Amino acid sequence: MSIYFENDPPQWEVLDSTYLHRRPWLTLRQDKVKLTSGRTIDDYYIQEFPSWVNVLAITPDRQAVLVRQYRHGLGTVAFELPAGVHETGESFLEAAQRELLEETGYRGGTWSPLMELSPNPALQTNLSYTFLAEGVQKTGEQQLDATEEITVHLVPLDALHSLIMDGAMVQALHAAPVLKYLLQNSLG
Amino acid sequence: MSIYFENDPPQWEVLDSTYLHRRPWLTLRQDKVKLTSGRTIDDYYIQEFPSWVNVLAITPDRQAVLVRQYRHGLGTVAFELPAGVHETGESFLEAAQRELLEETGYRGGTWSPLMELSPNPALQTNLSYTFLAEGVQKTGEQQLDATEEITVHLVPLDALHSLIMDGAMVQALHAAPVLKYLLQNSLG
Repeated sequence: MSIYFENDPPQWEVLDSTYLHRRPWLTLRQDKVKLTSGRTIDDYYIQEFPSWVNVLAITPDRQAVLVRQYRHGLGTVAFELPAGVHETGESFLEAAQRELLEETGYRGGTWSPLMELSPNPALQTNLSYTFLAEGVQKTGEQQLDATEEITVHLVPLDALHSLIMDGAMVQALHAAPVLKYLLQNSLG
Repeated sequence: MSIYFENDPPQWEVLDSTYLHRRPWLTLRQDKVKLTSGRTIDDYYIQEFPSWVNVLAITPDRQAVLVRQYRHGLGTVAFELPAGVHETGESFLEAAQRELLEETGYRGGTWSPLMELSPNPALQTNLSYTFLAEGVQKTGEQQLDATEEITVHLVPLDALHSLIMDGAMVQALHAAPVLKYLLQNSLG
């Protein structure tokens, strides 16, 4: 949902825009921009990414299907939602269903949109779309990419609540929709 | 909180590391890494940032002090928490108190840590630290940087609940701690 206020500033004017990198995993742009005040910034860096998807998947016996994997930015392993990149030609829902199946072997159930978030509205172009999948079933094994090393963990909803309150899900794009789900369902 | 599991993978081994950029607002590193499986990735890009801070500040009459500003990555304006960058020589708490005062003119009250989150554990090195500030008072005017164009909005807590459930706070690093606060205080 977008809300506009009368005193919201307008979009910056882009005076110049140059790609520093257009590589498979790195698209980095330098914009020269003009602010509402007329002041200019010569070096505003924006990273372009495709849309991201993730899913809060819950089994019929009310356990969340979480994953753990090593993350090199922080150099740590933590609980995450199954997640991935939206690929050309699929819907966000199809992308989330594909990622859940690939990373965990779970599928099916009833799917609905849960939350749309920005990883960083200042520095990144993309949004992350979270789905809620209730009643998923394990129908197969993981189908991981060659560089993926992911373990699957079933976490009962009360343990999920403790886990997130204790900071064991550090990825903001995953913590926020889980907290929204817990709040919506008065699982506080 | 960090939890370790026996089947968690170890840290990747960094075989080589090169800085593509070390500019004031852009520190970008390319790592060559070796995974647990022995497979290598030649081009894993990591963006280094300082720590970030933000604050959920609440007035004595139970209104949240939010801000709105234009964000060039998404090209939109949305509700946010007062937030900024942790500077050398200050604590995270001091950084959050400074940012609240600069962006809104509010200060004081009782401060406590609310949440620690990663903007992106795969691609960024930094964490974001959120504080809860209860009973803040307006004691002055905004002291904005030359490139900041920020408006202040007092939002009652029930409206804050609606606002976040409706997706009007799109920044994941801000939505998650607000949701945690609402859940902790059974404001669902």
